[in-house]
Amino acid sequence: MRKLFCLLISLSAFTQVQSQNSIEDSLFIRAIFDEALTNSKCYEVLEHLCTQIGPRLSGSQGAAKAVDFMSETSKKEGFDKTILQEVMVPHWERGNICEVKTANKETTFSACALGGSVGGEVKAKVIRVSHLEQLDSLGEANIRGKIVFFTRPMEPRHIHTFEAYGGCVDQRWAGPSKASKYGALGTLVRSMSLREDEFPHTGSMSYDTLFPKIPAFAISTAAATRLDKMLNEKPDLEIYMKGNCAMLPDTLSHNVVAETKGNENPNNFIIAGGHLDAWDNGQGAHDDGAGCVQSMEALRILKNLGYKPKNSLRAVMFMNEENGLRGGKKYAELAEKNLEQHIVAIESDRGGFTPRGFYIDTEDAKLISAIAKYRKLLEPYGLHDFKQGGGGADISPLKDKGTVCLGYIPDSQRYFDYHHASSDTFDAVNKRELELGAASIAAMIYLLDKYGLPKQQP
Amino acid sequence: MRKLFCLLISLSAFTQVQSQNSIEDSLFIRAIFDEALTNSKCYEVLEHLCTQIGPRLSGSQGAAKAVDFMSETSKKEGFDKTILQEVMVPHWERGNICEVKTANKETTFSACALGGSVGGEVKAKVIRVSHLEQLDSLGEANIRGKIVFFTRPMEPRHIHTFEAYGGCVDQRWAGPSKASKYGALGTLVRSMSLREDEFPHTGSMSYDTLFPKIPAFAISTAAATRLDKMLNEKPDLEIYMKGNCAMLPDTLSHNVVAETKGNENPNNFIIAGGHLDAWDNGQGAHDDGAGCVQSMEALRILKNLGYKPKNSLRAVMFMNEENGLRGGKKYAELAEKNLEQHIVAIESDRGGFTPRGFYIDTEDAKLISAIAKYRKLLEPYGLHDFKQGGGGADISPLKDKGTVCLGYIPDSQRYFDYHHASSDTFDAVNKRELELGAASIAAMIYLLDKYGLPKQQP
Repeated sequence: MRKLFCLLISLSAFTQVQSQNSIEDSLFIRAIFDEALTNSKCYEVLEHLCTQIGPRLSGSQGAAKAVDFMSETSKKEGFDKTILQEVMVPHWERGNICEVKTANKETTFSACALGGSVGGEVKAKVIRVSHLEQLDSLGEANIRGKIVFFTRPMEPRHIHTFEAYGGCVDQRWAGPSKASKYGALGTLVRSMSLREDEFPHTGSMSYDTLFPKIPAFAISTAAATRLDKMLNEKPDLEIYMKGNCAMLPDTLSHNVVAETKGNENPNNFIIAGGHLDAWDNGQGAHDDGAGCVQSMEALRILKNLGYKPKNSLRAVMFMNEENGLRGGKKYAELAEKNLEQHIVAIESDRGGFTPRGFYIDTEDAKLISAIAKYRKLLEPYGLHDFKQGGGGADISPLKDKGTVCLGYIPDSQRYFDYHHASSDTFDAVNKRELELGAASIAAMIYLLDKYGLPKQQP
Repeated sequence: MRKLFCLLISLSAFTQVQSQNSIEDSLFIRAIFDEALTNSKCYEVLEHLCTQIGPRLSGSQGAAKAVDFMSETSKKEGFDKTILQEVMVPHWERGNICEVKTANKETTFSACALGGSVGGEVKAKVIRVSHLEQLDSLGEANIRGKIVFFTRPMEPRHIHTFEAYGGCVDQRWAGPSKASKYGALGTLVRSMSLREDEFPHTGSMSYDTLFPKIPAFAISTAAATRLDKMLNEKPDLEIYMKGNCAMLPDTLSHNVVAETKGNENPNNFIIAGGHLDAWDNGQGAHDDGAGCVQSMEALRILKNLGYKPKNSLRAVMFMNEENGLRGGKKYAELAEKNLEQHIVAIESDRGGFTPRGFYIDTEDAKLISAIAKYRKLLEPYGLHDFKQGGGGADISPLKDKGTVCLGYIPDSQRYFDYHHASSDTFDAVNKRELELGAASIAAMIYLLDKYGLPKQQP
């Protein structure tokens, strides 16, 4: 009886502590969201980054200006440290010509070069391909001397639009070289977007060094639909494509890091990040100015609320996510070299939209369920999704070294309207949605810093 | 033992039926979303309504055209019935003048008349009021002969922006007459929006017949901030306001109703609705063209999937929600007169944004928890919020007669950027978000039609 009594007492004490913690946490998270919604300047920072600096592809003057600006912004915020990490990055330039027309020049298709494409001029017939495997079955006999047009659209039935993107992007990434393998002279790809409109969407492609590098352009979804229809009517239609993009020598650039020093374990790190480079055709507002300003804002919120973290906290603005991942690789390399223990990394690179939750990038069910316990505290702010999923490209090199990676999930419906297109501009970002995202990341940092992670399975 | 065995058998059978139902329901709801995301024309219908018809305030030519167009659309869809319900509606016109300036004409403030305001010309000093009670304490001595400027902004800390709106709208609705009671000559109100921008937001106001009708205008949030600052510097500043809006005689208009006949209980009705009228300064895209096309789309989806409803289903496009609610009242009156049993009414009037859930407009906890059980089936589509809350203005007269009312909840962050302003245009609506909302409503109609409602507490 006495044993049972003791057990009940201790259980009750435990419940009280838990419930006390839960009230404290609720109040602190409420304060985080209040701070974001009333005192944030992150929308203004994003406005400057987008409208005053604008395009900032790796190696460009814009990228250098963005590094300076975010570094100055970090210093003005008065974080404990502002660090610039040197990193050599690829330097590709789009040039000023990208034409896709019928050979008779009567019809023009809105087009842009894919990132990394060579320039060149091609006039040829077109062969349509919806899946890369078709190239193998069509073979050289059908492909040599032609332009390959990759036509597979994003599947609208996916509720999470990133799944629709994932189901298409092989055409853009690997299509050109696979077409070149069979003698194609150039490739066109239907833009990765769920909208039918006139914006061509760029994005990285990769050449296999075994095959000739051929020009690889995207055309808008509406243009792709038109071209498809024209080819139905006239399969022998000739298309003319011309571009003067080119790869230049690697250039020195930087990751920008803002740091708040930890009070108990200063050599343990929890980081939040986005990427500072952005495609050159838009302003890089959702992709990924939003993630950059949210990461720094998350640190600012915690600092302004007087939170003393156990671990060191960092906002990392990675360079070169779009066409090389050199910044992410460099960051992980330096972390290892400097013997910094990176416990958790959170990436925001899915746009500045209204919050939905966090992906947890692990196979460890125990870890997922431990982090998913925070759902109850975050549901009042619209975060319901706590599940297995990708963290993010920039932090993936940290994951390979044992860091637990989380991906911030905003609502995905509008993302591919803007992604890699000239429509990715500041005015497409809503201030409150951006701020709620920053607060969500701050709340997750707070919980993970305060309670740590459960031991992972070996 | 035998009893236990029987119980186990019957429990197991029950579980099998439940689980069989649950699989059927999952598959059917998946089919609903697939249909919406691949075959919907509701975005095109909304485009026509917004860009070809546009402003359609009750009594206007636009409203009459909208009635014709939606009625034609319903007939083209081939529903069992398309009904026009006659209803006399107020007819207020904004006129072509709305000026708010400093008396020296050096500074102009972006302004619009509130719906229902009289026209007029006023030049007077300004007294600022943040809460209506202040008018009582200031009294006639401080108010007579002045313009009252209502300054209370929407509270950004609310996560659900409708709470911020609810905390402000008394200034717009009741402020003018309460100011007139103490001798004010006119009123200005800070626009109900969470953005700081130059769009003035209109909306209904109501005159108390005991006091003189005075001109009542809204100024944009940015203009309100500027005026506030100017008054800090110069409390005696005189403001000039002028408008030529006017109330005209009541006009004949219509609710538009599309109907699919029920197979078991044709005189029982489940309806989904939005309102067809829209403020005259924008295109009424989110408010509430979205709700109209979603309601009709929900019926189309169920019809195209071959679903045979037990009860009759209706999409109702109500007239005159914005400044009178005559359509909603008429609908409920006719339902009673025609002895139609309205079981459930769902309203979509919170914008065409990404789905979040449904409000259930009842005090009956049992009913709320019964409907909230559908959460599990709808969470894969982003619907997590199933809770007590308002159904909607148009269906509130049905609620008074015992109908269970639900309000479709889309994400609320952007709504008040557009609400009642010239920014509420077609291009502010995302196709997928609109379609997902229609599918959410269709799924809820399906579940409520198939399983009915639990008995309500007396």
